Amino acid sequence: MSDEAADAERHREKMAKRKAVQDAEVAEKTVEKGLLIVNTGPGKGKTTAALGLMLRALGRGWRVACVQFIKGGWDTGERHAIQAFGTQVSWHTLGEGFTWETQDKARDIAACRHAWARAEALMADPTIRLLVLDELNIALRYDYLDLAEVVATLQARRPDLHVVVTGRNAKPALIEAADLVTEMGSVKHHFAAGVKAQEGIEF
Amino acid sequence: MSDEAADAERHREKMAKRKAVQDAEVAEKTVEKGLLIVNTGPGKGKTTAALGLMLRALGRGWRVACVQFIKGGWDTGERHAIQAFGTQVSWHTLGEGFTWETQDKARDIAACRHAWARAEALMADPTIRLLVLDELNIALRYDYLDLAEVVATLQARRPDLHVVVTGRNAKPALIEAADLVTEMGSVKHHFAAGVKAQEGIEF
Repeated sequence: MSDEAADAERHREKMAKRKAVQDAEVAEKTVEKGLLIVNTGPGKGKTTAALGLMLRALGRGWRVACVQFIKGGWDTGERHAIQAFGTQVSWHTLGEGFTWETQDKARDIAACRHAWARAEALMADPTIRLLVLDELNIALRYDYLDLAEVVATLQARRPDLHVVVTGRNAKPALIEAADLVTEMGSVKHHFAAGVKAQEGIEF
Repeated sequence: MSDEAADAERHREKMAKRKAVQDAEVAEKTVEKGLLIVNTGPGKGKTTAALGLMLRALGRGWRVACVQFIKGGWDTGERHAIQAFGTQVSWHTLGEGFTWETQDKARDIAACRHAWARAEALMADPTIRLLVLDELNIALRYDYLDLAEVVATLQARRPDLHVVVTGRNAKPALIEAADLVTEMGSVKHHFAAGVKAQEGIEF
C-alpha cells in the first residue's frame, strides 16, 4: 500500500470511529419539545440569529411571530424582507426606541407592557410555532416588566411553541428557565475602527 | 415637585446626557465599507446569524449569495425559505456532509476546492452585495484549503462587498483580517438535556 493510500485508510478508520460515537450520541437524544432560547451577550448576532431561525422555520411552513420591545419605528431591512412571507409572519414593532431617545421612563414602561401583552396573546395563538421576543432582556434589565411573571408565563408555554428571547444582560432566572442559551461575545468590532452603522448590515 | 415627578426628571436628565454621549460616538464613525464578518465559537447562532443578515440585506433589495462548504444534500428550512426571494438569492450547497459521514479525505478536499472556486466566482460578480461562506472555517481547520490564499482573496474583495464566514475554530489569520468577529459561546445547550435536533430549529 502506498503512503497516500495508507493515509486515506487511516483517515477512513478514524472517521468511521467518530461516526459511531456521533451516531450513539444522536440516538441518546429523543426528546422533542418547544425550546426556550436566549441569545444574549455584548456581541453581534443576537437578533440576526433569531431572524435566521425565523427564516428556517418559515421554510418549514410554520407560522412565526416577532415582538420588538425596544426597537421603534425605524425602517429595517428585516421588516421589508418578511413581507415576502405574507400572513406566515406576524410582526409587531412596539418599542419606542432606546431609553436615551425617549428620555421618558413612564412611556418606556407603558410601551414594554403593551408589547408584553401582545406577546402573551401570540403565545395563546395555536397557529404560531416560533415566537421571537426581540430585546425583551432590555425591558427586564430595567425592571420595566416583572421578571417572575415573565419567566412563569414563558415556562407555561404550550409544549410545541419555540420562543427566542434576545438582548444583552439576560437575567439569571431567565437563563435558569431556558433550554438553550448562547452568549455572543465581541472579539472584534468594526465600530471601534470608525466604521458606521450601515444599511443592510446593522438595520 | 412630587417624588415621582422628581424621579422622572432625574431619569430624563440622565438619558439626555447619555444621548449626547451616544450621538458623539455615532458622529465619530464615518467609514462605510464592505465588512469581513466572522461568526465562530462552539455555541449556536453562527449560521443563523448569517441567515438573519442575509434576510436584512434582502429587505434592502440587495442580491445575496451563500456557499455551503460542509453541509451537503440535506433538506433544510432555509433552502426552502429563500426561494421566496427568487433570483435575489444565489444559493450553492456544495459540501458532501461532515468528515465522519464521507470518511473520504480526498473527496472532502475536492468538494471544498470546488466550493471555494464558486465563492471566488461569486466575489467577482458585481451584482452580489453580501456573500455567506458557511462553514468555511471547518474547511480551513482541516487544511482542505490554503489559508494564506483564502485570506488574501477575502482581503482583496471589492470595497462594497460584505462577506460572512461561519464555523468553529476560526483561524487567527482570518480573525486578523476581519472587521467584525463574534464568538458564540454555549452557556446552556438542550442537546445535553437529551433534546434531539428538531426540524425548523436545527435544520
